[in-house]
Amino acid sequence: MYNLDTIRKLLIELEDTIIFSIIERGRHNYPIENFATNLKIFCTTYEQNAQIFDYFNTPENIPFFIDLPNKKSIINDEIFNYYITSIAPQICYITNHSLTTDYLKDVNILNLLSKRIHSGLFVAISKFQSDTERYQSLIDKNNSNGIMTLLTDLKTEDAVIERVGKKAEIYANMLNNYQNINYKNFFKKLYFEFIIPLTKEVELNYLLSLKTGLDS
Amino acid sequence: MYNLDTIRKLLIELEDTIIFSIIERGRHNYPIENFATNLKIFCTTYEQNAQIFDYFNTPENIPFFIDLPNKKSIINDEIFNYYITSIAPQICYITNHSLTTDYLKDVNILNLLSKRIHSGLFVAISKFQSDTERYQSLIDKNNSNGIMTLLTDLKTEDAVIERVGKKAEIYANMLNNYQNINYKNFFKKLYFEFIIPLTKEVELNYLLSLKTGLDS
Repeated sequence: MYNLDTIRKLLIELEDTIIFSIIERGRHNYPIENFATNLKIFCTTYEQNAQIFDYFNTPENIPFFIDLPNKKSIINDEIFNYYITSIAPQICYITNHSLTTDYLKDVNILNLLSKRIHSGLFVAISKFQSDTERYQSLIDKNNSNGIMTLLTDLKTEDAVIERVGKKAEIYANMLNNYQNINYKNFFKKLYFEFIIPLTKEVELNYLLSLKTGLDS
Repeated sequence: MYNLDTIRKLLIELEDTIIFSIIERGRHNYPIENFATNLKIFCTTYEQNAQIFDYFNTPENIPFFIDLPNKKSIINDEIFNYYITSIAPQICYITNHSLTTDYLKDVNILNLLSKRIHSGLFVAISKFQSDTERYQSLIDKNNSNGIMTLLTDLKTEDAVIERVGKKAEIYANMLNNYQNINYKNFFKKLYFEFIIPLTKEVELNYLLSLKTGLDS
């Protein structure tokens, strides 16, 4: 699971689903009135249900709203806010009416983004294992900048962003993109300014938790 | 809404989502043990939630399990059974362990199939409006075979099946199809033997309900 190639394969798989689901969501309206409140209610009930079926038993699946022991992520707050303020309004046709909407699609996208970003945990474990000494030294000095530099691989990041742009073009083309949104740029930006930085924040947070204290 | 071109556009949109979602589901395992029972529980809770947000206020959205006035469809039973016996086992890697699974994906696919098939209602309304006299005469004679013949457009059905096959090839290619399933044939068969016949059953049932009784 923590082999970097296996993890990359998983991330690439999630990529397709994220791109397709967001473009597909863009074909539908959403009612701006009470959108956040209603989505929160829908999401909470979904999570209560998902929890019964052990959805949150894997480390990368973290709820947005329900309380579970050792399952909290402030990054999910960022994801939720970004979704309702930057993703949905950019891709959907906004209506003022309280129309029927399909919150299942929104919950699905929120889960996908959260899962993708929190998979940074596996990336961090793998990177730490392959370069333990250097990481441990930076961690013990609480050197966040140093850790960030060490775990940053700009060549890979660029390759991801390019690949995402190409996929977005293909899927947008398949899915009759009525609003003529430039999804190639949209997804390149989404990965560049949101998904990749937050994934690295997850990686950093995990690594900082490995600090060897005085009592160890 | 009941213009045949608008309806066809909606059906084509649903097509992409159905094809993508099923191929994507095929990349994940599912636990054969208690699959139907668990999916039923998950689906029921989802529907209770969706109902709060008026998901079932449109005629083509019909619940599988919760009771709503004038919202019953025995065709949903067929869809559920077909999904758990013919779709999931054919595309997923089956495990005997009670693994964590993602029922959200299953609920999503069930909803898509149900929505696609029950959109036959709009097709029937449109066809009836454009050829009222002939339909009414067959309806009043309870001539199911005659109605079925009149509403069958083999050329369009063939075109749909061909288009679905082509799309399935593209999406399967995008989505790293590990199990080497021939999704082109899979989806052509799914539409030919399942989606199209059930859609026509919905059309027929609606038309038969238009019988002018003695009291009218």
